[in-house]
Amino acid sequence: MRRLQYRLAATLAALLAGVLAFGAAGNRSPAPLRLSPDGRFKVALFADLHYGENAWTDWGPAQDAGSDRVMAAVLDAEKPDFVVYLGDLVTANNVPIPNATLYWDRATSPARRRGIPWATVFGNHDDMAFEWPMEWFSPDGVPPVHCPPSVSDCSFRGTPRVDLMMAEVDRDGGEQGLSRSSVGPEKLWPGVSNYVLQVLSREKEQDPALLMYFLDSGGGSYPEVISDAQVRWFQTQSQFLNPDGRIPELVFWHIPSTAYAKVAPRAKSKIRRPCVGSLNREGVAPQQAEWGMMDSLANRPSVKAIFVGHNHGLDWCCPYDKLWLCFARHTGHGGYGGWPRGSRIVEMSENPFSVESWIRMENGTTHSHIVLG
Amino acid sequence: MRRLQYRLAATLAALLAGVLAFGAAGNRSPAPLRLSPDGRFKVALFADLHYGENAWTDWGPAQDAGSDRVMAAVLDAEKPDFVVYLGDLVTANNVPIPNATLYWDRATSPARRRGIPWATVFGNHDDMAFEWPMEWFSPDGVPPVHCPPSVSDCSFRGTPRVDLMMAEVDRDGGEQGLSRSSVGPEKLWPGVSNYVLQVLSREKEQDPALLMYFLDSGGGSYPEVISDAQVRWFQTQSQFLNPDGRIPELVFWHIPSTAYAKVAPRAKSKIRRPCVGSLNREGVAPQQAEWGMMDSLANRPSVKAIFVGHNHGLDWCCPYDKLWLCFARHTGHGGYGGWPRGSRIVEMSENPFSVESWIRMENGTTHSHIVLG
Repeated sequence: MRRLQYRLAATLAALLAGVLAFGAAGNRSPAPLRLSPDGRFKVALFADLHYGENAWTDWGPAQDAGSDRVMAAVLDAEKPDFVVYLGDLVTANNVPIPNATLYWDRATSPARRRGIPWATVFGNHDDMAFEWPMEWFSPDGVPPVHCPPSVSDCSFRGTPRVDLMMAEVDRDGGEQGLSRSSVGPEKLWPGVSNYVLQVLSREKEQDPALLMYFLDSGGGSYPEVISDAQVRWFQTQSQFLNPDGRIPELVFWHIPSTAYAKVAPRAKSKIRRPCVGSLNREGVAPQQAEWGMMDSLANRPSVKAIFVGHNHGLDWCCPYDKLWLCFARHTGHGGYGGWPRGSRIVEMSENPFSVESWIRMENGTTHSHIVLG
Repeated sequence: MRRLQYRLAATLAALLAGVLAFGAAGNRSPAPLRLSPDGRFKVALFADLHYGENAWTDWGPAQDAGSDRVMAAVLDAEKPDFVVYLGDLVTANNVPIPNATLYWDRATSPARRRGIPWATVFGNHDDMAFEWPMEWFSPDGVPPVHCPPSVSDCSFRGTPRVDLMMAEVDRDGGEQGLSRSSVGPEKLWPGVSNYVLQVLSREKEQDPALLMYFLDSGGGSYPEVISDAQVRWFQTQSQFLNPDGRIPELVFWHIPSTAYAKVAPRAKSKIRRPCVGSLNREGVAPQQAEWGMMDSLANRPSVKAIFVGHNHGLDWCCPYDKLWLCFARHTGHGGYGGWPRGSRIVEMSENPFSVESWIRMENGTTHSHIVLG
């Protein structure tokens, strides 16, 4: 009987996942994700790519080419089953064009070109309005920028989250597409990248073996926060999809919650056990408020870890209650910080169950191996 | 011969003014402004009305009603020939609707209803994006806001300057309309409220007796600055319209230039001659850079005074070289500061020539009378 209930829940969950992925942007459901034939699922996290900085200079485009190379090196070395773009794909406050989707497309192209499915969440820079440099008002004036004929279209107010996500889903979503991203429920607005993905088992073909929750941690056009409405949505979703907590769960968003600051190694000190990592060069820059998301997650033993970006100078994992709080590794050549670039890899294995993680560097080395569950 | 040249220049100037007022927004030239039959021209300055604050509360709409009353009291007491709306007509960062033109219309309605022509310039709040209150992410959630069916339209990114100005000109501009505002030359973008108005003489019917320059001092969607391009535009315009400096000139923009800080009375001290005013309750909050506008103005003896708003706690005039730097008086009940509301009045007389100014309060009193030229 319990088994039947479980099956029923799983079927409903699959239906719901279809509805979720269906979203607001199209009528096409994406193909399901599934563990690889060896019962594993490997995810590469690309954090803080910051495409589109100072396109009117030499160094901006050169920096973007550098980010292309980092992702290529990581994908070719690790051959992951999935990519998570962990926010700040673009530095929209640096993009003097009315539509930033071309930069967004470029950020996802390394996965696209290799046929690897992916998901995206928003960071605080993705929908920011253009910040006019003061020097453009000096005698040197405004350099040539891509302004359409009408001045009215040229206020560079940033591309709204929904427009960025709809463009991605329209281009790369659906049954044949590689994007598993989704415009989340309207009731969670102004947050947009709120959705759940299931990874199906190899052993029991219709059962999910892993749930991945993606949340919009705000910033840019609204405060850096996970709202009470998002907390309630997570509770409902997780209760429905995984009522008995059998399925392991991973969570992805951009800006560390205030809990990260509580467990962080002292800024710029050596990272010691139980924390694991190589980079501890700045203080945690947390969300502006905590409306209960961390309590909800800590109360679910099925949640193994949270992954965030945002702090380019941090790459550690530290325990918090029964779950792990992990930073990704700064992947992009865009954004602040000159530390060597890389990508946090997360690998889940079905039987025996495990979740492990390490950091893959652009130069081919790996480090900071850790078992997360 | 000199007289003929002057006439020719004046005719060209009138044509140019038509072209300027023609602007980007319509094919209709506004009717010319002219001194009243007694050879005078009286302008009321409405500064920092800040319509649209917290429309979802009781105090926001009550505050807007207060601003309606201040303007009505001033207009009915002074019966000016013209109104200058000196920026921050709306607090766009407080307006959770995709289009702020209804608030803008309300700000201009006291002049419209009395048949008084007007001009508007932009302040730093007019095209700001909505700033989401943190409490909207708490369990109380987002209050009912005017969000259209599609989430995409609901990012509240502020109504661009051009859209606000085009809406005003479309509604109230043209030959039959009262608005003398204009979308300025595209080459001055992102500044928009850059234009010149002429007031024709009573004595010599085709000759201008006064030139009024309106400039966009930035802020909101771009830095708080008057650009080098605006400086050059002013130089070209003033040289063309008033080559021999016979016509007195007044200048209007929103944010005080750094020169204001240089001549200001010590913050919170008594205002002493040669400065004249009643309110000196804060430090000057100047533009972020000075690209030469003040030198251009100080070099023209025909320029009698500059009028700005922005600092609600200042209402003085102080001399700077041969011209006067004046603050308006905070007119709106919106925006910071609880000082009694009023309006700076500027009156020009043709023969004998004079420019005088005083402050008219909501309660019917006047004070701070000064001769500016």
